[in-house]
Amino acid sequence: MDSNTLFNNIKKKKSFLCIGLDSDIEKIPAVLHGEKDPVFRFNKEIIDATHEYAVAYKPNIAFYESRGADGWISLENTVDYIKSQYPDIFLIADAKRGDIGNTSRMYAKTFFERLDFDAITVAPYMGEDSVSPFLEYPDKWVILLALTSNSGANDFQFSVDREDQTRLFEKVLQISSGWGTENNMMYVVGATKAEMLRDIRKIIPGHFLLVPGIGAQGGSLEDVAEYGINNKCGLIVNSSRGIIFADSSDKFAQKAGEEAKIVKDKMAAILLQNQIL
Amino acid sequence: MDSNTLFNNIKKKKSFLCIGLDSDIEKIPAVLHGEKDPVFRFNKEIIDATHEYAVAYKPNIAFYESRGADGWISLENTVDYIKSQYPDIFLIADAKRGDIGNTSRMYAKTFFERLDFDAITVAPYMGEDSVSPFLEYPDKWVILLALTSNSGANDFQFSVDREDQTRLFEKVLQISSGWGTENNMMYVVGATKAEMLRDIRKIIPGHFLLVPGIGAQGGSLEDVAEYGINNKCGLIVNSSRGIIFADSSDKFAQKAGEEAKIVKDKMAAILLQNQIL
Repeated sequence: MDSNTLFNNIKKKKSFLCIGLDSDIEKIPAVLHGEKDPVFRFNKEIIDATHEYAVAYKPNIAFYESRGADGWISLENTVDYIKSQYPDIFLIADAKRGDIGNTSRMYAKTFFERLDFDAITVAPYMGEDSVSPFLEYPDKWVILLALTSNSGANDFQFSVDREDQTRLFEKVLQISSGWGTENNMMYVVGATKAEMLRDIRKIIPGHFLLVPGIGAQGGSLEDVAEYGINNKCGLIVNSSRGIIFADSSDKFAQKAGEEAKIVKDKMAAILLQNQIL
Repeated sequence: MDSNTLFNNIKKKKSFLCIGLDSDIEKIPAVLHGEKDPVFRFNKEIIDATHEYAVAYKPNIAFYESRGADGWISLENTVDYIKSQYPDIFLIADAKRGDIGNTSRMYAKTFFERLDFDAITVAPYMGEDSVSPFLEYPDKWVILLALTSNSGANDFQFSVDREDQTRLFEKVLQISSGWGTENNMMYVVGATKAEMLRDIRKIIPGHFLLVPGIGAQGGSLEDVAEYGINNKCGLIVNSSRGIIFADSSDKFAQKAGEEAKIVKDKMAAILLQNQIL
């Protein structure tokens, strides 16, 4: 999927919501525990109830890996279901991978060939040759960590370089934006650091940003939009637990749909206000 | 496993060799292709032929994930085989994981509970709360990326901090060494940067280092030992392709054993020379 198609989907759905499928088997409603593949069943019901409010889904690979081979089957079923039923969805593997070239190439094969994800989150520490194998796939994206939403972001990401006076997350943006284009690279910027989006937009005015951290992590959608939106929206804002685990009764999917609609309505207002709709 | 046990195993085997199980199904010998689980069968034969020369094995998770559920079964079979047959082996998941706390917790559960690895490689970019969930397990280790062996290491890892004049990899060592102890943290330092080991040893004289990059990547074992060894050895040096893919005939295991023995003999000489044996 290219950035124009993504932008058109955002306009069509009046939403830039990504729903994080952090589908912890220990948190899914009891009513599903008798199913053959309870995690896939949970995802399917969540997706059916929320897809009209979302442009993207983001399975968090850790929650699938933790169940070994069974988890990978749940993940494959989820990817296949989304791709066959809702082909306009932008599908992100939240995997935070990144290794030497021949190993990143294997990760790319996993997430872009075996599983038909549109994008994968990648950690920048190992530099260009750990990222470039993912960029060799047409219409597939790298979403590189820039400024993360967690408290540990303060440990290294704000370290100021002596030569060029940039903070590490700015250096990551400056250098890595030359590795790809606005059509195959996005960046992770945490909603808990919304005021930083102004500085980030000076470096990468046109790139899409994947913004986690609203909801359970405490970030504000309005702040993110104020500082981060551009004329092609340029934002995909994620919510995971606040939507998928909004309710644990047998009405979990309906409640997830209601929560997603609340976020989508706020997003539609923001898009209108910024003359994008 | 604690660091004393690891050191005793190094003395007993006269070796600080780790063998990387980057077991690419497309590279394993044709003779195994009819097996039910050809990758496990390959690993088993390699392990049986090399275990007396190695203190550690390091499955590279990318090569298992790329085969989906089947790959995870090969990985589980490999871990179970090593743990049951060769319990003194230090077993490393080369996974380069690291995410916000609740997600790192799931990765820790995967690699330390579901799979009984002794250690996992972790990327430092997201800081303390992305690493600490792995440190909550007694006798389990984090092996944090410090200075990697690939060319992309130059993109960010040498950025000098304006305040304290440390390079990023040094800052990672300084800050993160406070998160754990010499009994649950090691660092990845590439053999292709051997001369840097002198600076690294000033910051962390006592920690074990996992050193990839000899063999196919071009690093020198002698240089690594000269600059990196300490009085408890303090080194685990990895070789992957140079050993496991030394031969593609039906004699692949025997040839892998011969290659491992060559490296082990060099290591025994280094240990003697440094009065560790």
